[in-house]
Amino acid sequence: MKGKVYLVGAGPGDPELLTLKALRLLRTAEAVLHDDLVAPEILKLIPPTAQVHNVGKRCGTKKIRQEEINFLMVALAGSGLQVIRLKGGDPLIFGRAGEEMESLRDAGIPFEIVPGVTSALGAAAAAQIPLTHRKAASALVFITAHRASESDAVEWEKFVGSGATLVIYMPGQNYSEIAGKLKSAGLAANTPCAIISAATTGHERTHLATIAELHRAPKLAAPRLLIVGEVVRHAYRADAGDESLITDISGLQENSITATFFQNLLLQSQLRGDKEPSA
Amino acid sequence: MKGKVYLVGAGPGDPELLTLKALRLLRTAEAVLHDDLVAPEILKLIPPTAQVHNVGKRCGTKKIRQEEINFLMVALAGSGLQVIRLKGGDPLIFGRAGEEMESLRDAGIPFEIVPGVTSALGAAAAAQIPLTHRKAASALVFITAHRASESDAVEWEKFVGSGATLVIYMPGQNYSEIAGKLKSAGLAANTPCAIISAATTGHERTHLATIAELHRAPKLAAPRLLIVGEVVRHAYRADAGDESLITDISGLQENSITATFFQNLLLQSQLRGDKEPSA
Repeated sequence: MKGKVYLVGAGPGDPELLTLKALRLLRTAEAVLHDDLVAPEILKLIPPTAQVHNVGKRCGTKKIRQEEINFLMVALAGSGLQVIRLKGGDPLIFGRAGEEMESLRDAGIPFEIVPGVTSALGAAAAAQIPLTHRKAASALVFITAHRASESDAVEWEKFVGSGATLVIYMPGQNYSEIAGKLKSAGLAANTPCAIISAATTGHERTHLATIAELHRAPKLAAPRLLIVGEVVRHAYRADAGDESLITDISGLQENSITATFFQNLLLQSQLRGDKEPSA
Repeated sequence: MKGKVYLVGAGPGDPELLTLKALRLLRTAEAVLHDDLVAPEILKLIPPTAQVHNVGKRCGTKKIRQEEINFLMVALAGSGLQVIRLKGGDPLIFGRAGEEMESLRDAGIPFEIVPGVTSALGAAAAAQIPLTHRKAASALVFITAHRASESDAVEWEKFVGSGATLVIYMPGQNYSEIAGKLKSAGLAANTPCAIISAATTGHERTHLATIAELHRAPKLAAPRLLIVGEVVRHAYRADAGDESLITDISGLQENSITATFFQNLLLQSQLRGDKEPSA
């Protein structure tokens, strides 16, 4: 039997935001290569018999090159295993899936993409920010701050000032620099923005500010996202009178339901004693 | 007991691309207001005891105004019901969730957003197109063609020619007009694009072309998405020698597994005889 690689999105953090398909594939995986961003609760769903490799490139000390990840995927699938390449969010957004697909095609390894909830959607849901709005934003732009550092303000001008909502993935913590770029690109200093940290997890934090206030925003923990645009005015506010606040809007009650739901799913899976759903 | 509204994303089409949370909420719903885009297989998950309202605004004959949807949500939740507002894809992208949230806040009805896999991610996964690429696209833009018809080419210039991938939601079938706008905005006539119809369902169809060839693309069925940009060169091709082809890349085998998986989930739920997972 020939192996296969599934490039699977793990969603924004909350294990309950996995898709049913991702859950099914994880429960029957023979090898899993995962990023650092994937939540521990999700990794617990992998069968104990599976090989698990953390191929996260973010760990300070651990370094693995993209070529090594590609090689590992090809080698494992080539030896006949069902391989899950598990990525935070969706695999096709800022995840270097293009390079991984190319390696798999070159090696003749069959593969399939399983989309996931990208972190921008998790963050917006958590902060209750409509990413588009009939009156305020008819376009949505996803960009990384990495690009911001490399490029000049002219590039950012392409995306701002046209009523688009801007979602900056991996904004880092140099908010002054980002605020400067946004202003140079033509955005008003009073444009609202939201920093969302650890969205959809128990550690979720949201900070609302304007571009002018961004430099003194708290250094919230990674993973972070920055949402910029008029739609942020629609965000949830714990205290509507406070212009700049941190809210913890994770639902603890919901999380406990999630845990129970998960235990049930796992229990059912164990009771059936099968690795693949049977007819 | 006070009711609550959940604005839930149903994902791009394949019922197995529902999130675990969406499945849990649907299984315990007391009232569901759904769009036309939501797949029948997903609607079958709703308990027979729940009220179900099709509030789709796309049906030719059926017309319901946004204000009526808002009123219905508030009335049902106000009478103490757990209400699911079920939207295709993700609720916060081109779904008028902003207006619905405003109505719920005004009425003092508690609500929660449950993100979903937006259709762009389903379509890109189906066609194996990386939406960003380290060498080809460092930004991703979601826009509707509705905007295209309203606005002039200057608006589109904002988003093209900067290495961004452009995903046009609801492009309609006037491909000549869209091609004209893209060219006026500065994109080269040989820029590759993909029309993806009914992504992630059994009726999925993909057509690859260049902007110059777009006017003679086949009229694939709705729902459709148009992806434009250099990344489309990485798309799956059934026949790599053919420059313009239609591929049916839905996995029939996968779909039969999905049906079985679903039957199991429902059976387990019935066997437990509970509406909410118990500890």
